[in-house]
Amino acid sequence: MSSQPEHPTLLIPGPIEFDDAVLQSMSHYSESHVGPGFVSTFGDTLAMLRKLFQTTDPASQPFVLSGSGTLGWDLVAANLIEQGESVLVLTTGYFGDSFADCFKVYGADVTQLKAPVGSRPQLPEIEKALKEKKYKAITVTHVDTSTGVLSEIEQLSALVQKVSPETLLIVDGVCSVAGENIEFDNWKIDGVVSASQKAIGVPAGLSISMFSGRAMKVLEERKTPVAAYFASMNNWRPIMKNYEAKKPSYFATPSPQLIHALETSLKQILAAPVSERFAKHAEVSDRIKKAVADLGLKQVASKPEDQAHTMTAIYLPESVKATDILPALAKKNVVFAGGIHKEIAPKYIRFGHMGVSVLDPKRGDVDRAIKALQDGLAECGYQKA
Amino acid sequence: MSSQPEHPTLLIPGPIEFDDAVLQSMSHYSESHVGPGFVSTFGDTLAMLRKLFQTTDPASQPFVLSGSGTLGWDLVAANLIEQGESVLVLTTGYFGDSFADCFKVYGADVTQLKAPVGSRPQLPEIEKALKEKKYKAITVTHVDTSTGVLSEIEQLSALVQKVSPETLLIVDGVCSVAGENIEFDNWKIDGVVSASQKAIGVPAGLSISMFSGRAMKVLEERKTPVAAYFASMNNWRPIMKNYEAKKPSYFATPSPQLIHALETSLKQILAAPVSERFAKHAEVSDRIKKAVADLGLKQVASKPEDQAHTMTAIYLPESVKATDILPALAKKNVVFAGGIHKEIAPKYIRFGHMGVSVLDPKRGDVDRAIKALQDGLAECGYQKA
Repeated sequence: MSSQPEHPTLLIPGPIEFDDAVLQSMSHYSESHVGPGFVSTFGDTLAMLRKLFQTTDPASQPFVLSGSGTLGWDLVAANLIEQGESVLVLTTGYFGDSFADCFKVYGADVTQLKAPVGSRPQLPEIEKALKEKKYKAITVTHVDTSTGVLSEIEQLSALVQKVSPETLLIVDGVCSVAGENIEFDNWKIDGVVSASQKAIGVPAGLSISMFSGRAMKVLEERKTPVAAYFASMNNWRPIMKNYEAKKPSYFATPSPQLIHALETSLKQILAAPVSERFAKHAEVSDRIKKAVADLGLKQVASKPEDQAHTMTAIYLPESVKATDILPALAKKNVVFAGGIHKEIAPKYIRFGHMGVSVLDPKRGDVDRAIKALQDGLAECGYQKA
Repeated sequence: MSSQPEHPTLLIPGPIEFDDAVLQSMSHYSESHVGPGFVSTFGDTLAMLRKLFQTTDPASQPFVLSGSGTLGWDLVAANLIEQGESVLVLTTGYFGDSFADCFKVYGADVTQLKAPVGSRPQLPEIEKALKEKKYKAITVTHVDTSTGVLSEIEQLSALVQKVSPETLLIVDGVCSVAGENIEFDNWKIDGVVSASQKAIGVPAGLSISMFSGRAMKVLEERKTPVAAYFASMNNWRPIMKNYEAKKPSYFATPSPQLIHALETSLKQILAAPVSERFAKHAEVSDRIKKAVADLGLKQVASKPEDQAHTMTAIYLPESVKATDILPALAKKNVVFAGGIHKEIAPKYIRFGHMGVSVLDPKRGDVDRAIKALQDGLAECGYQKA
């Protein structure tokens, strides 16, 4: 039995439904941010993040800061790129465009490889781009929350290693970390930026990231000062190292309650091999995608290999408006999200499937959502052709 | 009866002890950040902040962002100051120095007026400085958490209005908002930056600020782009306006749980006139300061008019080390903080007295802390001379 009151089931691509124990950790009594109890909690949490990201290289550096996921872009753009340096941004939706905007604010020379809506830049064109120009970094949105398009990190990394191994590989993992497999060391990733409120399963308010030893070296060897203060890795790196070594230190006050919730969630995540977690997300995602196809509906991500396992972006039938189906679903206590990709926004809806809604079949969240979608579409007058 | 488990009473200058209902709000079930329920909660919260800051000018703009209090400095430095513009930073401790560092990161031409430890820059020297050079902004730490020194905002404002009325008056209110009187409109303040975990009484994780219509005009009339992305007011201002108008919109995901906790705390704060809240903080502070004097101890803030009402920084007797008295207090379940001002760090301790510990006499927090301090010092071999 859940300790949460009855409420509509939140199945948007984040925030997701949270586990009871995680929510209870949010109410933890107040502690000093530099007291031994909390320092130990934060240190353990940082160590667990290494396991989630599958990195054993001691040079890898986790960062957990108070902020939205968006703050992770500032971490990358203000710390790893200097004024005028070139960045190649692979764009599969809204979030690639916004990451590019963030780089421009900090003076980067940005080249975007934009795929048509619903697909992703292909390896041959990426190879061509990497050969034409020297890039300090290449970025990729692992799952673009606006389209549900999944990018292949392993193959991309192999290409970067082959063509331009000195280029930093940066992954926007906001809608993928803890839902899609990420092998930080094996895939030679230099940075993954993420947030708490998606597959990591913790209320919003934490920017969570992992950077490689090579990225830290780039930071150390900057010719110009870091271009931010709160988002400066130089300010936070010693603090993160101290917390992990269980030593108190201070730059800005972290949120003990959010860190407790993150500790609780990471303990749950790491209680089983992470591969099982990713397999379960894939299995449930396949079931959802089959139900969508059975309804005669198409996904925004057109090819099966481009489809995320943490969410599904579904084109509506021409006869059904998002402003009709979303309220119809809400009446059935299921909350989906509307579209946010500006080229197609009114034409599709988004179904997030991460964390407890996927992993705990007793909740019945996914089956209830599929049924609600079937019934809701019928109520809106839709019949499969 | 509290619903919180037994735990040491946290009497550091933030985070503070939190009210049960506020902590329970942290466990709120998950909601969409753009759904009608949460949009209404956030909108009401922003409207209540106007009352806390005593501003009725509709041009005033509140911002509530996920982040530490430190993020407020980036908001000021990256949005209101352009490369090479001059800022006068009044420094009464560690936090004035750090605010100056933040300005430098964003390219400001910084002049610091530093007072000797335990005092504050005096009006005549501030007047001289303002007459010598044209400053875009002057900043003041209302209560410097490292020293417990209180600055007089009203008198400072009158001086700025007289000598250099076009200079923006920016207040670092991290350790003062909701504990010390701040009359945003009457005192012609252009910006107050604060955080959730001090007198506002909400777990850490929110940067909370208020800016004047004049500050917003400075933002609009910038000649160069804003120098940050996550900390860009241009990205957040329309979002804050939309939430307050109860319209959904998105730049980066806010934390529904922290916003619920803030709503709960602001409702409690505004249930009585804020003047009563400030008077109660002053009354309890006076009692603590008398107990400190009765023990034969001196405060870091030497003159009574320079002493904050939200915290007390206490010089230890020469015979007592911080590393002895702090653990002795901890054994009595009272948590004070050590010193952080680099010139005097080992010589003093800090006692925070804000929020429920001050306002709810049934808790007995303050009396227990005073008794623990008396007994702890005696155990450390101290006797009043």
